[in-house]
Formats: sequence, structure tokens, C-alpha cells
Amino acid sequence: MNKLYIIKIGGKVLDDKAALSKFLQDFSSIREPKILVHGGGTQATQLGEQLGIKTRMINGRRITDANTLSLVTMVYGGLVNKQIVAELQQKDCNAMGVTGADGNMIKAERRPVQDIDFGFVGDILPAGVNTSLMYFLLKQNVVPVFAPLTHSDGTMLNTNADTIASVLAIALSKHFDVRLIFCFEKKGVLQSENDNESTIKVLSEGDYRELLRKGIFTNGMLPKLENAFAAIHSGVKEVMIGDATHLLNNTGQQAEGTHIVK
Amino acid sequence: MNKLYIIKIGGKVLDDKAALSKFLQDFSSIREPKILVHGGGTQATQLGEQLGIKTRMINGRRITDANTLSLVTMVYGGLVNKQIVAELQQKDCNAMGVTGADGNMIKAERRPVQDIDFGFVGDILPAGVNTSLMYFLLKQNVVPVFAPLTHSDGTMLNTNADTIASVLAIALSKHFDVRLIFCFEKKGVLQSENDNESTIKVLSEGDYRELLRKGIFTNGMLPKLENAFAAIHSGVKEVMIGDATHLLNNTGQQAEGTHIVK
Repeated sequence: MNKLYIIKIGGKVLDDKAALSKFLQDFSSIREPKILVHGGGTQATQLGEQLGIKTRMINGRRITDANTLSLVTMVYGGLVNKQIVAELQQKDCNAMGVTGADGNMIKAERRPVQDIDFGFVGDILPAGVNTSLMYFLLKQNVVPVFAPLTHSDGTMLNTNADTIASVLAIALSKHFDVRLIFCFEKKGVLQSENDNESTIKVLSEGDYRELLRKGIFTNGMLPKLENAFAAIHSGVKEVMIGDATHLLNNTGQQAEGTHIVK
Repeated sequence: MNKLYIIKIGGKVLDDKAALSKFLQDFSSIREPKILVHGGGTQATQLGEQLGIKTRMINGRRITDANTLSLVTMVYGGLVNKQIVAELQQKDCNAMGVTGADGNMIKAERRPVQDIDFGFVGDILPAGVNTSLMYFLLKQNVVPVFAPLTHSDGTMLNTNADTIASVLAIALSKHFDVRLIFCFEKKGVLQSENDNESTIKVLSEGDYRELLRKGIFTNGMLPKLENAFAAIHSGVKEVMIGDATHLLNNTGQQAEGTHIVK
């Protein structure tokens, strides 16, 4: 099977123009079929403050009322997505910015209210990923760039970008040998949060559960790791968590981070 | 050749949820291949006011400084585009929201500064329309939904939606019998601006020049008419200007408006 890269970019890199440019340059230079999934960075929070829309987070997830949905649809689906697409086009990468609503590529359901009402937040249904259009786009050398939004019943839904990357990787592993890379501002999964040299080179599910008990992972890291293990257990060939500004090393090879293994 | 509908929706209809829904229902029920192009409505102006970004218009065109570019990229490319896409998906129309940057479908150049610096405004190059990807999407029964944005050299550019509809129609008339319809809140081109029953049924270029001399057209109407005549003179089969809420009449036939003829 052909190789497919699915790369998720998030964290502080999205707010740092120079770091983002470096990352997009590296991303463009990957010759194989590829998909980019981006998060929202802090721009939604900043714009929300200007508009008097308060940010409310529970367990690292944004509570999405109607105003917040408009805000993230604008910022993620419009501003961040199109800035990335325009810059990739300049770098000769034929990017096409999409949300899950576009071409019905990712259908979700609105998260049911249990203890917490997350509002307009989408959980992706297993059968919700429509790979046929993605497959055709990739065959045309088009590079889909996903904003963290899905849809259901005529409304957009705010959806975690790590989850989108993971479910796309799982769904497309039927057609491709998928290499899934979660990129952010750190070198990988760290043994100690503040020591960027403490990268764990290889992380198995067993080691992960052990470290989880010791409480070494931060809140933001947990959904990423859960999505990473979901992918490696569901047909995705390779999963890595690594540094966005060193997607490629000086010799143009894939740089190292934390390899997620079964 | 197969028929292709290119329909532009703009004006007050975009700000009226019920009218927009009615229009999108009619649009969805067109069985032939189709493309929707939307304007921005007043949402960019309203959000701009909340953010302290002043709207400056000259000859009906928005002056687009860097802040205004971010604003229209968010509102046109994100909010308006994705709300339309999500609603079309609900109506079983496989919409895909795009700007000219996505898939490099419409490349423009930044308008040169002469008397006025319009800022980040794009003029579409004749060779700037990439029909092959659009053709391919239409063959997959995907319905492209264009926001009024193009790109050049790594930046988005604000671009008139009537112009986008017209250049798409001209470029695609090589592959399809294109029917181009400009929809807005009036019944067509009116003899007297405030009399919605004074619709001109058929308007030729000669009659248009005559009426232009008499000064009966409003500023907003002129670019629409210029784009309409450009299309009919450049291979587009049919061009109509009509009422968005009566795209189809009660018997499901195309409703009447002003037919633009050579």
C-alpha cells in the first residue's frame, strides 16, 4: 500500500508565525500523499475576549455555546484554516481547506448531556468518516487541510483536532500505510514536563498506563495519548508525537520524537 | 454538453435566516451539477464594528486593510460559508465550501494602487481559474460553495462575489452549457428602483447602455450588470438576474427575472 502522512499541528506553534512557516515548509516538502489537521491556537480565545465571549474549559475541552460556535467556526474554519492554505499554496503545496461538513467528510453527533453540557461539541461516529472523497482528492495531489470542526443535522460542531487526526488515520488505514504524527511545541512525550531533553523515545500502552498511574502527564497530553493509542491499535502503521519545528531534520529525514507502539 | 448552474446569492437574503433557508431548499432541489457563490452580507460590517474595525467603502467596494482582511476571511470563509455548507448537507446536497485559495481554484493578483489603495483586494487573472479540480468535484456530485475570497503569493484577497460567479461561468462554459443566475432580494433589474413590479424581462447590452445613460441603475447594480454582460459575451449560455426567494416557482420550474442577452 502507498504511504500517507497525517500530521496534526497544534499548540503554541499556531500562534508563532515564524515557527508555523518553518513547519509548513517542512510539511510541503513531504512528497507522499498527506493530510494536515490543525487546532485553533489561542486566537479564538483572544477574539472571544474582544467580543465579550467568555472561554469556559472543562477537562481541557471548550464549552461551546451558540456564540462560541460562531467564534470557532470563524476562527478555525476561516482565519486559521485559510491562512495556512494560502501559505501552503505559496509553497507549491496544493492545499484545500475543509471542515468535516465539507463534502460530508466527517459527520458527528452532538455530545449528549450527562454531567456537563458541552454545547455544540461533536463526537465522531465510527461510520462518520467518508473516505471516498478524501481518497479521490489525494489521488489528484490535493492536500486536505482540516479545521477542527464537524457537522450534524445542519449545524457545525466543535471537535477536538487530535481526535480528528486519529479517526482520519484509522479510516484511511484501509487504503494506505498511514504514518500519523502529532506535532506541537515540545520534542515529544516528556518524562518530566519542564525538561525538553527528557523525551520518551518509545512508549508502549503498558508503559503509558504505568506512567499514568504516577501522574506524570499533563491534562492537555491525555487526549493526545488516548488518540495515539486508539490509532496504533486500529490499523494505523506508525504513530509519533514530536516537535513541530523539527518535522524534518537537517538532512531532510524525519526527525525523532516519541514513537507510540502497541 | 451537460448543463451547469452557477448561482450567486447575495444582498439582504444572507442576513435573513428564513429567506436563506428557502433559497437553499430550492438550490438543493436542482438536479443538475451546480455551484453556489455567496457574498458576505452585513455580518462582516457588524462584527467589524464590535471589533473596532471601521468599514470604508469606495464605489461599492470595501477597502481591505490587514485587519479587514482577517475579518472577511473569518466571516466570509468561515462563518457564512460553513453555515451554508452545514445547512445544504442537511438538505442532502453534498456541498463543499471553498475559497479561491483552496485547491488553487482561483488565483488573483492584488489590485495595483492607482488613485485608490483598495488594500488586500484581488483581481482575477484570465488564466487564474483552475477548472480541472472543479470539473472533477462536479463529476463526484460535489457542490462547490465559493466564499468571495481568492489568493495570491501566500495571502488571501477579498474579491467581489459577482465577479467570481462570472469568471467561473466563463471558464466552465468550455465544459458545460452554463446557466448563470445572480440572486438577490429583488425580482430582477428594475425600471424604477422602488417598484418591485417594474422588472425588465429582457435586457440587451444596447438597452443597458441606453438606460445607463439615463442613470436608472444604483451603484450596487452596476458591477452585477457588468459581470452579467461579460459572461453572456464570453460563452455563457444563459444569464439571469432574479429573486433569491423565488429561485424556483410553485411548480418547481425556474422562476422569472431579468434575462441578460447580447
